[in-house]
Amino acid sequence: MNPSVSTKTAQPNRDSNLNRESCIARDKADPLAFARARFFLPDNTIYLDGNSLGARPHAALARLDAAIRDDWGKHLIQSWNTADWVNLPQRVGDKIAPLIGASVGEVLVADSTSVNLFKLLAGVLSLPEVANDPSRQIILSERDNFPTDLYIAEGVNKMLGNRYRLKLVSGEELQSALDSSVAALLVTQVDYRTGRVHNMDELNRAAARCGTHVIWDLSHSAGALPVQLNQDGATFAVGCGYKYFNGGPGAPGYLYVHRDWQTRLSTPLSGWFGHAAPFTFVPQYTPAENISRFQCGTPSVLATIALDAGVDTFADISMSHLREKSLALTDLFWQLADTHLSSFGFQCVAPREHVLRGSQLSFAHHNAYAIMQAIIDRGVIGDFRRPNLLRFGFTPLYTRFVDCFDAIMIIRDVMQSGVWQSEKYQHQHAVT
Amino acid sequence: MNPSVSTKTAQPNRDSNLNRESCIARDKADPLAFARARFFLPDNTIYLDGNSLGARPHAALARLDAAIRDDWGKHLIQSWNTADWVNLPQRVGDKIAPLIGASVGEVLVADSTSVNLFKLLAGVLSLPEVANDPSRQIILSERDNFPTDLYIAEGVNKMLGNRYRLKLVSGEELQSALDSSVAALLVTQVDYRTGRVHNMDELNRAAARCGTHVIWDLSHSAGALPVQLNQDGATFAVGCGYKYFNGGPGAPGYLYVHRDWQTRLSTPLSGWFGHAAPFTFVPQYTPAENISRFQCGTPSVLATIALDAGVDTFADISMSHLREKSLALTDLFWQLADTHLSSFGFQCVAPREHVLRGSQLSFAHHNAYAIMQAIIDRGVIGDFRRPNLLRFGFTPLYTRFVDCFDAIMIIRDVMQSGVWQSEKYQHQHAVT
Repeated sequence: MNPSVSTKTAQPNRDSNLNRESCIARDKADPLAFARARFFLPDNTIYLDGNSLGARPHAALARLDAAIRDDWGKHLIQSWNTADWVNLPQRVGDKIAPLIGASVGEVLVADSTSVNLFKLLAGVLSLPEVANDPSRQIILSERDNFPTDLYIAEGVNKMLGNRYRLKLVSGEELQSALDSSVAALLVTQVDYRTGRVHNMDELNRAAARCGTHVIWDLSHSAGALPVQLNQDGATFAVGCGYKYFNGGPGAPGYLYVHRDWQTRLSTPLSGWFGHAAPFTFVPQYTPAENISRFQCGTPSVLATIALDAGVDTFADISMSHLREKSLALTDLFWQLADTHLSSFGFQCVAPREHVLRGSQLSFAHHNAYAIMQAIIDRGVIGDFRRPNLLRFGFTPLYTRFVDCFDAIMIIRDVMQSGVWQSEKYQHQHAVT
Repeated sequence: MNPSVSTKTAQPNRDSNLNRESCIARDKADPLAFARARFFLPDNTIYLDGNSLGARPHAALARLDAAIRDDWGKHLIQSWNTADWVNLPQRVGDKIAPLIGASVGEVLVADSTSVNLFKLLAGVLSLPEVANDPSRQIILSERDNFPTDLYIAEGVNKMLGNRYRLKLVSGEELQSALDSSVAALLVTQVDYRTGRVHNMDELNRAAARCGTHVIWDLSHSAGALPVQLNQDGATFAVGCGYKYFNGGPGAPGYLYVHRDWQTRLSTPLSGWFGHAAPFTFVPQYTPAENISRFQCGTPSVLATIALDAGVDTFADISMSHLREKSLALTDLFWQLADTHLSSFGFQCVAPREHVLRGSQLSFAHHNAYAIMQAIIDRGVIGDFRRPNLLRFGFTPLYTRFVDCFDAIMIIRDVMQSGVWQSEKYQHQHAVT
């Protein structure tokens, strides 16, 4: 890793003296190497899918054990006060805040990414200046956005009587598609397939010029690269707890609402935990005057505690070191793939430029599905994404340089041996 | 306990020979006594708040330990297939189904009670026959309904442009308020304060005569008394996982949609897990053709596993035995309160008639808050509900007859000693 490389403009590094030993040497010099000990990682496995489900932090089990045994078990209902469960979603939100460039009190852990997106999009489209302006007709998004974001936009719009039209364009066309007819722009910062990064500052400025509200989805960026919500002028965002934040399968999501907007935006998912005074049990809804208004039902305490342990794996981690390592890992993997896999027809679809690249690489291959099953059988865990992508995620807290080397050697072996052509790897499961 | 008592019509039993020994004798004869061993219950505590947060099943910890250590830890992303996480919400729903009189495939664990209510109410109000009938103007509910239900109704209606009017009446007036102007009736089967039970069959019939859709909230009834959704003509219901189902703090909720309605009703919370083929990642939403369409985002696996352990505490439990014991417990507690507490001004607000009584008793008292704090300090855990109620829940799987006796003796002692008048018990916390 070369710390002098600027993450803003650099092109990929090429290492002319690349072998297993040089990878081990890099791991020894890695300033983030200490973080790997925070995770349980199974033997004989190279896990390159932490962008889909983060690995298990050691602390998750101990933390849940204590919460279940002592707080739930012994103190029962009183733990809402004594263990301060009642403020847990805000507390974990405040831990996430500095990792995404938000301020204290601007981030809340709640529900799922999809539900949180519903809250914010419905809120934005119900703002009087949006709802009452007939020229604001468009919800703009990217055709290749993660589908649930598009499904939620459909659902919100349908409930609003199809008052808006969902317009889908390519990532490159987003900015030029912005005009004063666009009520809301939904944009995922890092593309889940190609790993391409959108420029948050630039898109926010372009949207602001058109009076368009932007809702960012940070699912594939937060915890993988520095996100600067405040600095880049973001007002609304949602994100995922179970990917880079290591919160466990189906972990709660989170949402960000800039302080200036917290009392202006309201959510139709107006459950009792978003009430200004939930425990007065009055029949009329009055939203809290802060980020808590974006809570709906009783928060999932156990799941939020697991997420808390996941977020804590970022303690004492410099996000610029993390970004440097992430780029070094993807540079390395790409170079190794060029050397060892290109003759087998692997074609990387990630952006070459660092500034455009997330913490993942995808390779197009006609036989992507079968190949991925075969390499998973050999202990290299990535995933298949339709129609023809092998996707590999690089999680700088626990992925090592030597993992990249070993994974490429295994993939090469799978290709050379032709084992991927076995019948058992051909059938596509419902889930991958 | 007298098993010859009909739960449909009986009046309270009076035990003329009531003392601690006779309570212990009842516990010895209790056919459900074996179930208490399924729970961890702390020493020196009489827990009468399982209607707010169920006690911890021993299995919860072991089950989560295995899921975290093995499924998440070792098998990582593959557990969506190998541990069948992907069907977990349906699987646990199918376990809940027989406990609420529903059929396999009619119950789904998902999100929170509030979010699930939003899904069903928004779905009902978007049915063409409702939305397009201008005479259907009313969302009817009970003034004393649990507030989140009313808040959600407000939120749904606001997002629908206040197309409807939320009409709140007393529980007794619900049936007479039904007419053809009522689009939807939201009714909680057991009142969270008084414990009064609504007659599901009768209300469903009355609503059907008016063409009104009913959404039942089972939060304070399911797991406490026999619920017969299919038999009583219910089409839609939601419920809570963390009360009588012992799913842990903030456990996911569940929803019920009668099989005939699953493809007719659609939810605006159209996340990817409700898609007919979520892993094809197509940009257009097509809802699943079954109960799965009511999923939204990625399900909370860890929280659902804890709920699974909670629901399993009902294995081999006869719901009619459960109901008999529940009534015997409330009869006993009430009789003891009459004998020992009435001179201190305690007034029970629960219905005398068995058929109208849930598994809880509330007592009005001018100093309810301070008294509850004082008895909690003595290890009797109930809760305070505004404005002036001491509420006690009786969970037949782990509450013993002797617990009722001991609790009353402690409360009597607190009243006789006047300790509740201590300054430290007067200040009301934000949360109770």
